[in-house]
Amino acid sequence: MENSEYKRLKALIDEHLLTFLPEIDDKSGTLLEAMEYSLTAGGKRIRPVLLLGASEFCGADAKLALPYACAIEYIHTYSMIHDDLPAMDDDELRRGKPTNHCVFGEGMAILAGDGLLNSAFETMMKDILLYFDDPKEIRKRSRALYEIAKGSGCRGMIAGQVADIESEGKTCTKELLDYIHLNKTATLFIAAIRAGAYLGGADSRKLLDLSDYAECIGLAFQIADDLLDVCGDEAQTGKAGGKDCQHEKCTFPSIYGIENAKARLSELTDKALEIMAPYYDEAELFTDLAKELAVRTK
Amino acid sequence: MENSEYKRLKALIDEHLLTFLPEIDDKSGTLLEAMEYSLTAGGKRIRPVLLLGASEFCGADAKLALPYACAIEYIHTYSMIHDDLPAMDDDELRRGKPTNHCVFGEGMAILAGDGLLNSAFETMMKDILLYFDDPKEIRKRSRALYEIAKGSGCRGMIAGQVADIESEGKTCTKELLDYIHLNKTATLFIAAIRAGAYLGGADSRKLLDLSDYAECIGLAFQIADDLLDVCGDEAQTGKAGGKDCQHEKCTFPSIYGIENAKARLSELTDKALEIMAPYYDEAELFTDLAKELAVRTK
Repeated sequence: MENSEYKRLKALIDEHLLTFLPEIDDKSGTLLEAMEYSLTAGGKRIRPVLLLGASEFCGADAKLALPYACAIEYIHTYSMIHDDLPAMDDDELRRGKPTNHCVFGEGMAILAGDGLLNSAFETMMKDILLYFDDPKEIRKRSRALYEIAKGSGCRGMIAGQVADIESEGKTCTKELLDYIHLNKTATLFIAAIRAGAYLGGADSRKLLDLSDYAECIGLAFQIADDLLDVCGDEAQTGKAGGKDCQHEKCTFPSIYGIENAKARLSELTDKALEIMAPYYDEAELFTDLAKELAVRTK
Repeated sequence: MENSEYKRLKALIDEHLLTFLPEIDDKSGTLLEAMEYSLTAGGKRIRPVLLLGASEFCGADAKLALPYACAIEYIHTYSMIHDDLPAMDDDELRRGKPTNHCVFGEGMAILAGDGLLNSAFETMMKDILLYFDDPKEIRKRSRALYEIAKGSGCRGMIAGQVADIESEGKTCTKELLDYIHLNKTATLFIAAIRAGAYLGGADSRKLLDLSDYAECIGLAFQIADDLLDVCGDEAQTGKAGGKDCQHEKCTFPSIYGIENAKARLSELTDKALEIMAPYYDEAELFTDLAKELAVRTK
């Protein structure tokens, strides 16, 4: 991502990402190693950047939102570790590196995922306990935690993953595809931006606009991802190409065709830009991000 | 368990256990089915009873602690689903019924576990949001959530599971055995009782006594479990016997021998009773529970 705000916030996340993990003793050293392996295996950090960006956009200091930003990256990372397992997508490469279970074994990869999900909530709750004498801050932070819990749970990301694995080999309807895209990807984008908005004390107008924007770029991101799987090669994507096709996954290009998928991606990007237009330069991070996601190659 | 208080609290949990799960739509119906399958597959509900019992012991209405009690049972249940997976303990039976992955497949079992862990935090956080105008209640409830997050995480239950799978086939030291027992089982007992104590507004004396008591019965419970694996048969335990031995697990009887394991179990039970003795009849639930756990056969 070329936007300088994006780079600044991403650097802040990369710098602090490991610092919020619970202190793990030597006897569970491999667990920490496995968790850190996947956390530091690269990644665009889109979700935590959205969270920090929304929090600044609404008037807060991004640094005070860091526990939530790191927590959402822990959740995203755990979901990838579990998603790559042989019983799920069975991927051996992620971002050009061997997946977690290929390095640490399946049992440890399951526990590393569990550990990251648990650490996300532990990290956020530990932060909330710091504000015991400040009811206003507790309120903001509790709302942020709840948004993340809802978005990553059985009415959000996990629901998307369930529908995704259940759709394999079946006839995919447009309705099911929408459901998978919305829940598997867009919901965590929405949760990230809403959590940031709450932390920043957003008014209801901004909260609504940011949510709508996040839904658009979340859906656009997933379509771009599906397109990359069809059109990209391993060098671009860092993982084996055509996996979705092998698994007979329900994807946008497989239902609508490549050209229609590109048109929909562009339509969603335009809508995202339109939502943020009234904020002019203040929303540059968000508008630049929408544009870059639409043309990303990796 | 014969204690009438125990029965009353267990009935309360069984009645409400499914009511705190997030509303899941039809497209993720199998997920809900898989989660409910393991939640309703029987079980003594020791952890949630400890939580409710501690909360009443410290002066609160058990009903108001139910979201936390159910959350800790979700966490215990997710840990069993993941623990039974082929990549972990590879168990086909649990409480006499086929394990989750044998019924729903490995992918769905992983997601059902993830879903239960996530739902635990979602449930507790949703409860906290109800008390926005009551800083004192928020404080108690946030502490309870944090105790549970810490106890189930990388410094607690997950650490125990990591050490457990890593110990397989290796020479087990007494120190490692203590570490596994404390973290794998006792930590969640302690978290349950401390969460309940916080919800009930415990003073520091009661908090300490309850924590010490929970550590004793948690360790005793695990020794009894190890003994059942060696001495019990499938009809008693509801799972295939001698599994620990097959996996060359680090267990109390394998290091100290059966007679010494029994002596240690009895010593821990006595210590638990001694801790609660100053509370006389008020602590009957806890003393009866300690006695019953020491002689349990299933």
